[in-house]
Amino acid sequence: MAFPTLKNDRLIKALLRQPTDTTPVWIMRQAGRYLPEYRATRKQAGSFLDLCKNKELACEVTMQPLRRFALDAAILFSDILTIPDAMGLGLYFADGEGPKFERPLRSASDIARIGVPDPSEELRYVTDAVSLIRQELDGKVPLIGFSGSPWTLSTYMVEGGSSKEYRHIKGMMYDDPASLHQLLDKLAQSVIAYLNAQIEAGAQAVMVFDTWGGVLTPQTYREFSLDYMQTIVEGLKREHDGQTIPVTLFTKGGAQWLEAIADTGCNAAGLDWTIDIDEARSRIGDRVALQGNLDPCVLYASPEKIRDKAKEIITRFGNHPGHVFNLGHGIHQTVNPDHLGVLVDAVHEFGLEIRK
Amino acid sequence: MAFPTLKNDRLIKALLRQPTDTTPVWIMRQAGRYLPEYRATRKQAGSFLDLCKNKELACEVTMQPLRRFALDAAILFSDILTIPDAMGLGLYFADGEGPKFERPLRSASDIARIGVPDPSEELRYVTDAVSLIRQELDGKVPLIGFSGSPWTLSTYMVEGGSSKEYRHIKGMMYDDPASLHQLLDKLAQSVIAYLNAQIEAGAQAVMVFDTWGGVLTPQTYREFSLDYMQTIVEGLKREHDGQTIPVTLFTKGGAQWLEAIADTGCNAAGLDWTIDIDEARSRIGDRVALQGNLDPCVLYASPEKIRDKAKEIITRFGNHPGHVFNLGHGIHQTVNPDHLGVLVDAVHEFGLEIRK
Repeated sequence: MAFPTLKNDRLIKALLRQPTDTTPVWIMRQAGRYLPEYRATRKQAGSFLDLCKNKELACEVTMQPLRRFALDAAILFSDILTIPDAMGLGLYFADGEGPKFERPLRSASDIARIGVPDPSEELRYVTDAVSLIRQELDGKVPLIGFSGSPWTLSTYMVEGGSSKEYRHIKGMMYDDPASLHQLLDKLAQSVIAYLNAQIEAGAQAVMVFDTWGGVLTPQTYREFSLDYMQTIVEGLKREHDGQTIPVTLFTKGGAQWLEAIADTGCNAAGLDWTIDIDEARSRIGDRVALQGNLDPCVLYASPEKIRDKAKEIITRFGNHPGHVFNLGHGIHQTVNPDHLGVLVDAVHEFGLEIRK
Repeated sequence: MAFPTLKNDRLIKALLRQPTDTTPVWIMRQAGRYLPEYRATRKQAGSFLDLCKNKELACEVTMQPLRRFALDAAILFSDILTIPDAMGLGLYFADGEGPKFERPLRSASDIARIGVPDPSEELRYVTDAVSLIRQELDGKVPLIGFSGSPWTLSTYMVEGGSSKEYRHIKGMMYDDPASLHQLLDKLAQSVIAYLNAQIEAGAQAVMVFDTWGGVLTPQTYREFSLDYMQTIVEGLKREHDGQTIPVTLFTKGGAQWLEAIADTGCNAAGLDWTIDIDEARSRIGDRVALQGNLDPCVLYASPEKIRDKAKEIITRFGNHPGHVFNLGHGIHQTVNPDHLGVLVDAVHEFGLEIRK
């Protein structure tokens, strides 16, 4: 498939640590409930899963934030749990309770039974959406594809939904690590196939979200989360259609393990807000680009304070290539959309200033 | 009041980095719902708050885990939100939803209105329980008193309960820091008076729980949490009745800021499980003792695995004074109590072994 030429390549360049005119910015969950137009489309779609599985509507909500804000990237609108859903676990969303699985995995035999989904079959709705969005973007900004990390996916699959204690998954981790490794291995293979299919369908950068890696110990983080993300990094198509495809890994709560993340061979590491970006930069040097790291709650503050905090992060990072501005977690649904506009413009303004 | 002489002083010695025969161990929330006898007493009391406010029953549940396990300390049974309750915010517990306040603080005038509670009046039920427990312990093990940190208390007081996003408190922090500082200052003064009253009533060590400090940035952690804990450390009676009263600070998710915590003048720092205790020790040297740091989910594993993990932490800490074994967070309510017995005995066994 031939796609229009990319006009705004700040994101790709920054992820590859090449110079850019200003600091690129996109926002995790930028297509989401804080936007009234998103809520309207969501209502039209029916359930959240109906929205994810309808390529036209998924494309529409992906485009919505780009119409409002000068964002430097689009990110595929989808859910992180599409892979377990395709594995047959029966994903559903109970009102106000987050994701649930009808058939969680609790035993070695549950795990032995599941297979690696074929992205051109069960997950075709995702790659179809990717291609449609890429066409619709018309080269305006690059499209980011994504997946949950094997560890993060496995927490939902074994617990049967969100968790506070991680009782079942950690019980398995400590008592039957072989079964958990089998599950994580299937998930890593699935994520590789899924992200490569997104790349072939038109994703110009990919990101792995390890939302729950931060609940592990240093040793179990390496063994049960990071090693599988490294397998993914090694299995991805890093060149497609003559372009380099940058890979970003993001472990929320993983600032302590930043050196190890940088050593996986990824292009960029995501940062939450529990570490100063200048400290992160001095720790990892020029090994990877950094994406982050504003506390999402700053968007509840006044426009003036939002500008101050954007400037602070840009100043801390300094005049070097390799910074993609973002929040340290997804945007909260009760944020005033105008405040995001203030942030995006401030990033571009101060990003320009620091390069003078 | 004259109390019986302390027979098992391992905890106090370890907190003061003095040699002990083996590694002392106690468990956060050791008096709690995982014990059937606790659930029976709780039922008898009525609500959770009724249990906290009845000194005989609070004493009973404090003693329960000591009858089962060879623990080296008792900890006052109480709630971290007694201070805001005494300030008149109207604490209540909605079924399965955690703590709530009828009158959360949302404005500068709300904050201006509240005062510092007199521990001998509104919080008398706590100090009465402390003295009764101390008598009842009969010198068997020391009694730990505790409080929530000003930051952690303020999150509940401003949000009106538990939070995932910290929308209101962080909005105030970024937009009206002066009001939040006023609140935190009142809380720090309240915690000092409250903990000193516990010490005078018989608490032999005190601990400050900063459960939510880890949701802050490095700069806001220092300004809105750690500085107030330092004020508390400086305001506490560190000697009472001829004995040194050790102070422990614990910020969950605060391993990155361990050096700064150690520099407050506290005697010990609590560790969650996201850092290896040998790394923590090499970072803070001999400045403070360390308390922790087993992942609470290890108690869901087999007895053999529990022993392995206890041994690993003790081995990592090595043959030095200054380690108090604990979990990195409160014990989960669905843990099998026998598994805690396995852990306590393993700590004493391996603690003895490493000193040979």
